[in-house]
Amino acid sequence: MTEQTQEPFARPDGRAVDQLRPIDFQIGIAPHALGSVLVSFGNTRVICAASIDNRVPGWMRAQKVEGGWMTAEYSMLPYSTHDRKQRDISRGKADGRTIEIQRLIGRSMRAVFDLKKLTGKTIWLDCDVLQADGGTRTASITGAYVAAQIAIQKLIAKEELEENPFTDSVAAVSVGVYKDTPVLDLNYPEDKDASVDANLVMTGSGKYVEAQSSGEEATFTREELDTLLELGAKGIAEISQLQKAAICEGLK
Amino acid sequence: MTEQTQEPFARPDGRAVDQLRPIDFQIGIAPHALGSVLVSFGNTRVICAASIDNRVPGWMRAQKVEGGWMTAEYSMLPYSTHDRKQRDISRGKADGRTIEIQRLIGRSMRAVFDLKKLTGKTIWLDCDVLQADGGTRTASITGAYVAAQIAIQKLIAKEELEENPFTDSVAAVSVGVYKDTPVLDLNYPEDKDASVDANLVMTGSGKYVEAQSSGEEATFTREELDTLLELGAKGIAEISQLQKAAICEGLK
Amino acid sequence: MTEQTQEPFARPDGRAVDQLRPIDFQIGIAPHALGSVLVSFGNTRVICAASIDNRVPGWMRAQKVEGGWMTAEYSMLPYSTHDRKQRDISRGKADGRTIEIQRLIGRSMRAVFDLKKLTGKTIWLDCDVLQADGGTRTASITGAYVAAQIAIQKLIAKEELEENPFTDSVAAVSVGVYKDTPVLDLNYPEDKDASVDANLVMTGSGKYVEAQSSGEEATFTREELDTLLELGAKGIAEISQLQKAAICEGLK
Amino acid sequence: MTEQTQEPFARPDGRAVDQLRPIDFQIGIAPHALGSVLVSFGNTRVICAASIDNRVPGWMRAQKVEGGWMTAEYSMLPYSTHDRKQRDISRGKADGRTIEIQRLIGRSMRAVFDLKKLTGKTIWLDCDVLQADGGTRTASITGAYVAAQIAIQKLIAKEELEENPFTDSVAAVSVGVYKDTPVLDLNYPEDKDASVDANLVMTGSGKYVEAQSSGEEATFTREELDTLLELGAKGIAEISQLQKAAICEGLK
Amino acid sequence: MTEQTQEPFARPDGRAVDQLRPIDFQIGIAPHALGSVLVSFGNTRVICAASIDNRVPGWMRAQKVEGGWMTAEYSMLPYSTHDRKQRDISRGKADGRTIEIQRLIGRSMRAVFDLKKLTGKTIWLDCDVLQADGGTRTASITGAYVAAQIAIQKLIAKEELEENPFTDSVAAVSVGVYKDTPVLDLNYPEDKDASVDANLVMTGSGKYVEAQSSGEEATFTREELDTLLELGAKGIAEISQLQKAAICEGLK
Amino acid sequence: MTEQTQEPFARPDGRAVDQLRPIDFQIGIAPHALGSVLVSFGNTRVICAASIDNRVPGWMRAQKVEGGWMTAEYSMLPYSTHDRKQRDISRGKADGRTIEIQRLIGRSMRAVFDLKKLTGKTIWLDCDVLQADGGTRTASITGAYVAAQIAIQKLIAKEELEENPFTDSVAAVSVGVYKDTPVLDLNYPEDKDASVDANLVMTGSGKYVEAQSSGEEATFTREELDTLLELGAKGIAEISQLQKAAICEGLK
Repeated sequence: MTEQTQEPFARPDGRAVDQLRPIDFQIGIAPHALGSVLVSFGNTRVICAASIDNRVPGWMRAQKVEGGWMTAEYSMLPYSTHDRKQRDISRGKADGRTIEIQRLIGRSMRAVFDLKKLTGKTIWLDCDVLQADGGTRTASITGAYVAAQIAIQKLIAKEELEENPFTDSVAAVSVGVYKDTPVLDLNYPEDKDASVDANLVMTGSGKYVEAQSSGEEATFTREELDTLLELGAKGIAEISQLQKAAICEGLK
Repeated sequence: MTEQTQEPFARPDGRAVDQLRPIDFQIGIAPHALGSVLVSFGNTRVICAASIDNRVPGWMRAQKVEGGWMTAEYSMLPYSTHDRKQRDISRGKADGRTIEIQRLIGRSMRAVFDLKKLTGKTIWLDCDVLQADGGTRTASITGAYVAAQIAIQKLIAKEELEENPFTDSVAAVSVGVYKDTPVLDLNYPEDKDASVDANLVMTGSGKYVEAQSSGEEATFTREELDTLLELGAKGIAEISQLQKAAICEGLK
Repeated sequence: MTEQTQEPFARPDGRAVDQLRPIDFQIGIAPHALGSVLVSFGNTRVICAASIDNRVPGWMRAQKVEGGWMTAEYSMLPYSTHDRKQRDISRGKADGRTIEIQRLIGRSMRAVFDLKKLTGKTIWLDCDVLQADGGTRTASITGAYVAAQIAIQKLIAKEELEENPFTDSVAAVSVGVYKDTPVLDLNYPEDKDASVDANLVMTGSGKYVEAQSSGEEATFTREELDTLLELGAKGIAEISQLQKAAICEGLK
Repeated sequence: MTEQTQEPFARPDGRAVDQLRPIDFQIGIAPHALGSVLVSFGNTRVICAASIDNRVPGWMRAQKVEGGWMTAEYSMLPYSTHDRKQRDISRGKADGRTIEIQRLIGRSMRAVFDLKKLTGKTIWLDCDVLQADGGTRTASITGAYVAAQIAIQKLIAKEELEENPFTDSVAAVSVGVYKDTPVLDLNYPEDKDASVDANLVMTGSGKYVEAQSSGEEATFTREELDTLLELGAKGIAEISQLQKAAICEGLK
Repeated sequence: MTEQTQEPFARPDGRAVDQLRPIDFQIGIAPHALGSVLVSFGNTRVICAASIDNRVPGWMRAQKVEGGWMTAEYSMLPYSTHDRKQRDISRGKADGRTIEIQRLIGRSMRAVFDLKKLTGKTIWLDCDVLQADGGTRTASITGAYVAAQIAIQKLIAKEELEENPFTDSVAAVSVGVYKDTPVLDLNYPEDKDASVDANLVMTGSGKYVEAQSSGEEATFTREELDTLLELGAKGIAEISQLQKAAICEGLK
Repeated sequence: MTEQTQEPFARPDGRAVDQLRPIDFQIGIAPHALGSVLVSFGNTRVICAASIDNRVPGWMRAQKVEGGWMTAEYSMLPYSTHDRKQRDISRGKADGRTIEIQRLIGRSMRAVFDLKKLTGKTIWLDCDVLQADGGTRTASITGAYVAAQIAIQKLIAKEELEENPFTDSVAAVSVGVYKDTPVLDLNYPEDKDASVDANLVMTGSGKYVEAQSSGEEATFTREELDTLLELGAKGIAEISQLQKAAICEGLK
């Protein structure tokens, strides 16, 4: 390779391979929800809101399951994408991707949450994407935790809940292989061209909740997978600190 | 009644009967739409976005109608109300109120718009209520006009449109009879208890587009109707000025 | 203008501007309903039937609301229009116009009806258009009142109801601006070309229930609105007399 | 059995076992359809309308099938039954019985109709039950033929069709075993208690189109089946004469 | 016709006009159902399974009907036809033919079954066509009886049921007029070209449950109908013997 | 722990932690599909069928994408579970889990398939679970590859395809943490109680296609993840050999 001039690798927005986009939490975006936040990962912005319903779902009542329930709904607002995205209700059904994502958000939250302590309540976590630039599902999980934790602490302050059911914090980030290089927190131009796309959900204490790696009509090796897992763990450690600070600030 | 002390009439938030709530336009809330605004009438806040589709609907192509089309969709985000509102897609269909409102928004816009000048394009106006405190449909019309006007002027600036199809501005406000007193721009506590509820849509030049007055399981007289029409006209004159300033500012 | 001969204004069917079409009520068209009528406004003919259900809707039982309920459903039979209209069930959903109209019929009836007196019952008002020639929604309201009043009086006669919950009669008529001239009770050729279209719902004692005026992709002035309101009030006074006579006759 | 007094067999309305109910055809009930009739078999009354669409269904265009198409839709109006019947659109789908019946009506008509001669057109046969008292499907077939034949003859008169595609007339009647006795043209009280229920569709020249016999949670013998087939053939011969007269009268 | 050589009649697979295809029952195809069978009529193969639900449908509870319920569902697996058949769920609704067939299966079973003896239980009969070559509905009825009878006898053996509610066996076969010749048990090539198509459901003791004959856009005479009924009776007698043997074998 | 007798770890069916269930492929289960197999992983049995459609989806034609398409549908037959599972069509929509699984099957296949070489065709992969005992999605992927590979080779033999678009084989297996022990190929009793559940999709050459690990309302460490990945790789190597043999046999 001595004589061949190879163009050096560069990310579209100039970040280092292990660098997150600027992350921001604007607490209280939806005042009628008990907890809410507008979370930004660069130009990806998602409204996350936690609403309390003083009932549990029908299936819990029918099966006499004790405790409470926490579930999530996700949608992309029609103007969140460059080309307007048709509403689910106009198409008549939620698409497969939407359903996958909202199930992932719900599972991720419940992995660090003791439902038994939420007696008789349901927490609805709504994640609506205001602007999409890659990583909307991981931003949603990250913001949903912040909204839910704020809602929980307000319930405790109002003496409607005795103990905090959260056992840890939870955050998510995407990693992927872009131009043969593993990178952290892909934006849309990177995501579109990535050959491997992974979403990691981890706790504040560094444990895994979900690790989903998927070749985009491609395959990947164990070595690539290991590098992606490392990058993700580094990113989530940073995000967890930012979540903590935002919740603190939001509860002042 | 000489000796009886009657409690004087007062609005819940202390406004004069002909006083609007504070109105605000935050331009550019949804950057992927060509025009967008977060419009506030007090605590009622609605995201309004105008997106351009370089096609016309199937029925226009089938019937070979010339020009373009402009249509609206309205929804209440689940966390916009005190008790979480189930998403349309979860219930399986848009409810009657939603359909009525989005038809009203579309009709109102088209009354001051020359569709012939929008050759081959569709403008989608999306109105999503972030926080509901009465008057969401009138705030939506008011904001949708601002978003659409900004989008149109950007299309002209980009030379994708020759002439501005808008023939006038359009705004809307609610009026109603609350505790036997006609008042302007009802908030939710007033709206809930009003015996007559009217929505007026008028142009910047003072003409009517829609005038819908409805007894809430009650009736009203011609005199009451006249008073409501006066109050509305005054309110819309003020709102039209605020729209003009916001558009100016937004296009800087 | 002295020498120019202007064609004098004329309505397509030769009526005076303030003249109703021939109105007729054929009582008992659907014998299995407790009250029913085939109402005609000229060539617009609607089957209106009032059926009694000895239960209240689920939401009333859930919220323990006392009294009864009255609601309406509207549809255009497929052969009511010159070009066959597809059934709602074939399209998979009721269209927006249908939903608007059936909500309007229900609200109009409830404005002159004391639901508290209808303990434990639901009145279903079904309006099916047999032939459409303009003004199907106002004919539906006018006929639905006749069917409902007959059903109520039969319930009283059968001693299944103590007191008549109706507090007044209710009727409706359309008015509009056709060829720059305000006219009463538009037929389809007029309606199609009207620049302003209004629907008035009023009581037998001359109070308003709904007043909806709408520019058809056009605007209108306060003076035009006032003229329309006058025309409508005159028409409804006449219709109310005809309703009264029809109910009398129908109960013989 | 000499001393035992057995109550003699009697039909609820006193008819002979092989006697039809009074049958009537009121031509022109829905003037916007090219052919229409309100057919009555006693208290069973059905609006039947034939509408012409100058297109063929998508599947015929796609498969380049020549000729035209004829299809039927059936519904029970909500007030046709003693207890109000919920609309299909409110339940979200047509029920199985409705679908079975409308398929039967369509098949029956096409059995005596040469689709090849209806070039490029679709005939829609709508059958809406106004009052139900047993035998609504057979009344629908009987009336649909009358409406369709009138529409066809008008098309020919207007020179929009060259030749009559009908090859025969078609009519239908129900037969069944009521209180162990085979009877013709069951009304609702008979139908409800019948152990065997059969619907026969036959041509004016005495051929079969459909013969459906069904034990109602019961079985039947070959002898019973033969008797039912005889009764039905007699009834249809009479109905065919009445159809012929009604069409003649309707085309005057 | 003395000198004209006419090609002798032959069935596509060489069978005699009154000969059934090879019939086979593979018991236990779906071990999680209490009774199951893969039934074959030649190349038509259907999975039939009887599952027990220890509840009755909501309408039975609501109307306090005593006993149990038995109902059927039918579907064609997408790969059962030469050209892949789209799943009902992808099309959004069951088609009319599917609904007709599953209603027929349910009715046929209930005709030989005393629901009163099935206290508090529902039997679900699922019929999924694995390979379609004509006669899938009659194969489904024939197999559903075998699956249900096995399930019933297992319930009795487990002492969850006291008495066998079946009062007779039930089987079905198709007959039709193919190339002007009445034939028994049509395969797909015959069925496609048949001018008359009949489905007979009969009991082991030779009584009729359903007899449905239908001209395929054609008509038929009483003589043809009589011949078809004879052929069917002969076929069902043979099938009933095979069912009996299969059940015996399956319960060993 | 010296004196405490701890019960040694044992799997419910006695397998070693790294031992697969007996795997079997019954080729040709659905003869009307070009390729089909009944795949068994122990008591989990899935019908997998590959059908060819000589068209590409509408979106490919609209976007003028070259090549072909391959997609999957998954369903659980109602009798595949111990308690009967309601059909999707009865519930009105596919559930979230179904949609996730069929998307996974499709993605997995396309990762080892060059769609460009399948000019103008769509391969439908249908996976219907006949009996469910854990691991139905991994069995479906494993069987779908076998069915698709057979179909492809038959297309080549029929000279309807020039080159084999498959670039590798693909198989899947589940791994998980059961009673604190990582195990391979979980059956239902293990799956139900597993704290971590992972599904691995890998190629015959040992590359990853998908690696999805998920804490079941629980978290897991990097060490546990590594062990699971090892177990899965071992299992898939064995399964790949069995696939190869089955395809060979099936094409004889």
